[in-house]
Amino acid sequence: MTHPTSRLQDDVHQRVRLGILAILNGASRADFAFLRQTLGLTDGNLGKHLQVLEEAGYVAIDKVFENRRPRTWVKITRSGRAALDEELAALREVIASAERGATNESLSAG
Amino acid sequence: MTHPTSRLQDDVHQRVRLGILAILNGASRADFAFLRQTLGLTDGNLGKHLQVLEEAGYVAIDKVFENRRPRTWVKITRSGRAALDEELAALREVIASAERGATNESLSAG
Repeated sequence: MTHPTSRLQDDVHQRVRLGILAILNGASRADFAFLRQTLGLTDGNLGKHLQVLEEAGYVAIDKVFENRRPRTWVKITRSGRAALDEELAALREVIASAERGATNESLSAG
Repeated sequence: MTHPTSRLQDDVHQRVRLGILAILNGASRADFAFLRQTLGLTDGNLGKHLQVLEEAGYVAIDKVFENRRPRTWVKITRSGRAALDEELAALREVIASAERGATNESLSAG
């Protein structure tokens, strides 16, 4: 027997990274300041989580100059969308299993 | 603006602990061996996560002897149910927000 939580991968499941991917999934791209503000993070914390996601191949990061000011754009990659889809599918199963509600059953292995 | 992922608490959101609480929510109690087997964990790993949940007041652990053999029963507490309910509500919002699907919008803070 395998429980749906065994399909959750920490790269994607971690709270902040799940937030980043959920935001990016709904947009063509987002800038660093938008993510930091929407998720209520410090620069350092957001930077650390973006690095994990970039190393996993789930986001692409583009540092540019616009009107002589630096701007960091972040996009979700195709493999990031696939990983997020898997996470969301597993979460739906976890929610459904947890909501089946309390029984009086006593669960034991033997 | 606050994102629903900011309502996810690590005590409950962590993959293994979410699995433990989801299983316990559907039963009167479960024993250690059942949880270990269903979640595919080692004794040490399950023990560590149960300790986090017990310290948070989310599970109650009862070590007994049955037929001269030790057995560890685990139950979700009222406050564990409340914490799981909050997690599931936040997860439903995260899923809904992530599923709103790709637009061509470029999200920036200014």
